Amino acid sequence: MVIPAESFVLDPSYEGTLQQQIQELVTEGILSGRLQPGERMPSSRRLSEQLGVSRITVTLAYTELVSNDFLRAEGRSGYFVSENAPRPPVFDIPDQATADSVDWTRAIGQRFSRYAPLVRPSDWRRYKFPFIYGQADATLFDHQNWRQCALKALGQRDFEAMTADYYERDDARLIEFITRHILPRRGIAARPQEVLLTLGAQNALWMAAQVLLTQRRTAAIENPCYPGLREILEPTRCKLDVVDVDAGGLPPEALSSEVDVVFTTASHQSPTNATMPVERRRALLARAAQDGFIIVEDDYEFEMSFARSPSPALKSLDQTGAVVYIGSFSKSVFPGLRLGYLVGSETFIREARALRGLVLRHPPGHIQRTVAYFLSLGHYDAQVRRMGTAYAERRAVMEAAIHEFGLDLAAPSNFGGSSFWMRAPEGVDTIDLAQRLREMGVLIEPGRAFFGPEDENNAFYRLAYSSIPKERITEGIGLIADALAA
Amino acid sequence: MVIPAESFVLDPSYEGTLQQQIQELVTEGILSGRLQPGERMPSSRRLSEQLGVSRITVTLAYTELVSNDFLRAEGRSGYFVSENAPRPPVFDIPDQATADSVDWTRAIGQRFSRYAPLVRPSDWRRYKFPFIYGQADATLFDHQNWRQCALKALGQRDFEAMTADYYERDDARLIEFITRHILPRRGIAARPQEVLLTLGAQNALWMAAQVLLTQRRTAAIENPCYPGLREILEPTRCKLDVVDVDAGGLPPEALSSEVDVVFTTASHQSPTNATMPVERRRALLARAAQDGFIIVEDDYEFEMSFARSPSPALKSLDQTGAVVYIGSFSKSVFPGLRLGYLVGSETFIREARALRGLVLRHPPGHIQRTVAYFLSLGHYDAQVRRMGTAYAERRAVMEAAIHEFGLDLAAPSNFGGSSFWMRAPEGVDTIDLAQRLREMGVLIEPGRAFFGPEDENNAFYRLAYSSIPKERITEGIGLIADALAA
Repeated sequence: MVIPAESFVLDPSYEGTLQQQIQELVTEGILSGRLQPGERMPSSRRLSEQLGVSRITVTLAYTELVSNDFLRAEGRSGYFVSENAPRPPVFDIPDQATADSVDWTRAIGQRFSRYAPLVRPSDWRRYKFPFIYGQADATLFDHQNWRQCALKALGQRDFEAMTADYYERDDARLIEFITRHILPRRGIAARPQEVLLTLGAQNALWMAAQVLLTQRRTAAIENPCYPGLREILEPTRCKLDVVDVDAGGLPPEALSSEVDVVFTTASHQSPTNATMPVERRRALLARAAQDGFIIVEDDYEFEMSFARSPSPALKSLDQTGAVVYIGSFSKSVFPGLRLGYLVGSETFIREARALRGLVLRHPPGHIQRTVAYFLSLGHYDAQVRRMGTAYAERRAVMEAAIHEFGLDLAAPSNFGGSSFWMRAPEGVDTIDLAQRLREMGVLIEPGRAFFGPEDENNAFYRLAYSSIPKERITEGIGLIADALAA
Repeated sequence: MVIPAESFVLDPSYEGTLQQQIQELVTEGILSGRLQPGERMPSSRRLSEQLGVSRITVTLAYTELVSNDFLRAEGRSGYFVSENAPRPPVFDIPDQATADSVDWTRAIGQRFSRYAPLVRPSDWRRYKFPFIYGQADATLFDHQNWRQCALKALGQRDFEAMTADYYERDDARLIEFITRHILPRRGIAARPQEVLLTLGAQNALWMAAQVLLTQRRTAAIENPCYPGLREILEPTRCKLDVVDVDAGGLPPEALSSEVDVVFTTASHQSPTNATMPVERRRALLARAAQDGFIIVEDDYEFEMSFARSPSPALKSLDQTGAVVYIGSFSKSVFPGLRLGYLVGSETFIREARALRGLVLRHPPGHIQRTVAYFLSLGHYDAQVRRMGTAYAERRAVMEAAIHEFGLDLAAPSNFGGSSFWMRAPEGVDTIDLAQRLREMGVLIEPGRAFFGPEDENNAFYRLAYSSIPKERITEGIGLIADALAA
C-alpha cells in the first residue's frame, strides 16, 4: 500500500525547518501506528507537490529517516516504512487517567505546596510596560557568542565533559575561572575545594540551609526578604529571628543571641537594595565570631554595581571562615541557565557536595562547559558591562520619572542593581494596584511576598528595570502615577 | 607603551581554535592586570609572526575583542587595550585561604558526607577492559544529531525556552512527547499534570522519598539494591524493611505489614536484572491496595529490553494511583544530561513540583528543549535501537565468554539490560579482586555497595557491557577468570 501524500499536512506555526517538520510528521505517524512497517511512502515528487516544498527538502528528510532506520530505501521503487522502525505500544491504554483511590492526605508525609513562590506571568513579554525583576532581556544578551560557546562545548573534544556522570565533581575549567577571575573581583580568595557549583542561587541557599539548620536551630532573616528563602526555611522547621532592615541593611545589634545562622543580602539588600556599610559588616563579623554563628551571604546581583565601584563582599572581610558565600549567573547570563555556586570552608563544602550528590548528582556538564567558555573568552565581562551601561541609562530615566510623577522611593540605593523599592500612598493596597495596572499593560510586583505570612504588609511594591526598554519607562511610570491617583 | 609580542605564547595543549586561544590570552592578560588600559597591542603582523599563525587569525581575534570592548581600534595606528575593559580587582587578597576558626563540628546541623556514593574512576576510558556501568559510549551516541538539536534549541526562536525562569513549569513540548510517545510504550497513560521533569532519576527518587517519607514511616527496599537509594533514605531517618530478592525480584509476601512505601526496580532489578513476573506484579499491587502503601517504581533502564519485547511497567497495571513511576534519559541519551521524570497522581506531582521549586526551580530550559527535539525528530528511537543492537551483540559475546571461562552468573536475566550480576567463587573478596584487576586494565564493580552497611557481603560483582567494545570482551573475561584462579 502506498501511503497517500494527502495524509501529510504542514503546520504553519511549526518552529523549525521544513525538513525537520517532514521528519517529525513521518516519525509521529510511525510512532502513533498510523504508518505501518512495509508501507510505501509517497514519492518525493508527490510529497513535495502536496506540501508545496522543494523536492530536495523531501529527499533530505527521507535520507535522514533512512539513516535513523525509520524508512528504508529500495533502489528505484522508493521509500518504505522500515521493518525495524519502532512499534507503537500494544498495551491497552485507558482513555482516562486511572481513578485515584489512594488516600493522599495520609500518603503524603511532607507537604510542600503551601510554600507558593513569587511567580510572574509567563507571558510578560506581551505587556508593554514590564517592570518585572530577574528575567532575561533579549536585547542585552550576547546570543551569538553564547551560541558559539555552546557549540564549542558540543564538540567532539568536549564529549566527555558533556556526557559523563561527574558524580561529586565539577568542571575543573569553570571552577578555575571562578576562583581566579570572578571571586577576586569580590575580594574573595578561595581554593577549588572551597567552591561548589549549584543549580542556581536558590539551590545554593537550599543546600546551605540543609547543612546548617535543624529544627532545634535558629535562623535570622532580613525583613523584608527574598521570598524564596522563606520557602526554603519553613520545611526545616527551624526557629526564625526576623530582623527589620534599615537604610544600611541588617543591623547586627538587633540579632537575637540565640541565632545559629544569619542569612543576609549585604551588598544589595533584597528587595530594598540597601548596601551594608563597611563598619556594620565588621560589626556583624565580630558578632559571628563572638556568638559562634554562621553567615550565609547571598550576593545575587553583584555584577550590577554599575553606579559605584562595588563594595567588596562580606566574605572578603571574613578572617575566620564563618561566611558562606553564594554567587549566581542567573542575573548576568540568564535565569534559565540554573547555575550558581557556593563558597565556604572546605568542611562545609564537603557536606554540601555530598548533599548535592544525593539530591541531584551535579549540574549538567554541557552547561558547565559552555559557561566556562563564555567566561574565559571574555564574553561574560563584555555582557556584564553592556548590561551595566543599559541599566545605568534606564535607572536615570526611572529616577527622573519617579521624581517627575511624585512617586515615593521607599529606600535609597547607591550601587545600582536592577530595581527600586517603592512605597504606595497611605491606604493603597499594592496587590489591587498591580491587578489594575496589569489590565493597562503595566506589570509591577506587589511587595506582599517579601514579608512574612503573618505580616499583612501591602504598602510596598518593586519596580524593576531589567526587562523594560528605556523608551517606555516614562510612560509606564506615568500610568502607575495615574493608577495611584485614581 | 607597546605590549611586546613575546609576552604571548600559545599553549600546544589548548583545546579550541587558534583565534579563541588568542582572544583568551588577551582577556586573561587584561583580567589579571598584566595588560593595562591604553597600552598598545602588538600589530597583527608582529603577533602572527610571534605565534606562527596567519595574520587573518590575529585580525579576527582582535576584531572580536574590539566588539567586546576589551580592545579599541584606532584607525591606522592599531589596537589598544580599551579604557572600558574590566579592571582587575583592587582588593588585597591573601595568598592563603583564611585560617578557619569556626567549630564546624558544632556548626554543621546535618552531616551528609558519610553516604559515600558508588564512584567509578573518572579516567575509566584509559582502561582497556572497562566492564563498568552507566557511562556514555561515544561509539553508540548520535553526536551529530544531538549537536543539531542543541543548535536548534540555541536559536533565536527558542530564546525564551532557553533563558526564561520557568518557575514551577516544564517545557510543554517535552512533556507532550513523553506523555504521547514514551509512556505509552510502557503501557502508561498519563496527563501532563501527572508528569514532572527532574534532574535525572536520582533526583526523582530523592523527591519521592521527601514527599512520601518521615522518620515515623517505613520504606521497603530490595536487597541487594541501587546504592543511591540507600544514600537518599538514610537522611530521612525512616525505618527500613530490607527484603531479599529472588529470581523474580521482590517477593510481595515478604513485605512487612508496617510498610508505607515500597521502592522497586520491577522491570530490571538493580543489580540482579531479574524481571518481576506479571502474577507477582498483580500481587504486589493487591497488597498495596489492601495495606495502603505507595509503590515507587524505578524504571531506570526500560529502553534496554532488547532481548524480548519489554514487559509493561508495573505502573501500567495500576488501577488505583498507588504507583509513582520514575523514568530517565541517562541510559539512553547520556548520564551527564541529568534529565528524568516522575509520573504519579496529580496530588503527588503537585507536592513534588513544589519541592522541586524550592530546591532547584527547574532543569535548565536549554536541556529540556534539546531533548524535546531529539525525541520528536526520531533520533532518540534510532539511538535506542542502535544501542539495543550493539548491546545484544555484546551480551551474546559476554554469555559465550562467561560460559567458556566458567564464571558464575548469580542471576538470570531475560530482557536484556546492560550488565550481568556475578558470584565469585567461595572465599574471594570482590573488592580485592577489583583492585587486582584494575592493575591489569580490567574494571569491574564489586557488589559490596549494593548491600547494606551492616551486611559485609563481598561475594558478588557486576559486569556491565555498556561501555566495552565487543572485540575486547572475551579477552577481558579471560583476565577475570585468571585473576579468580590465582
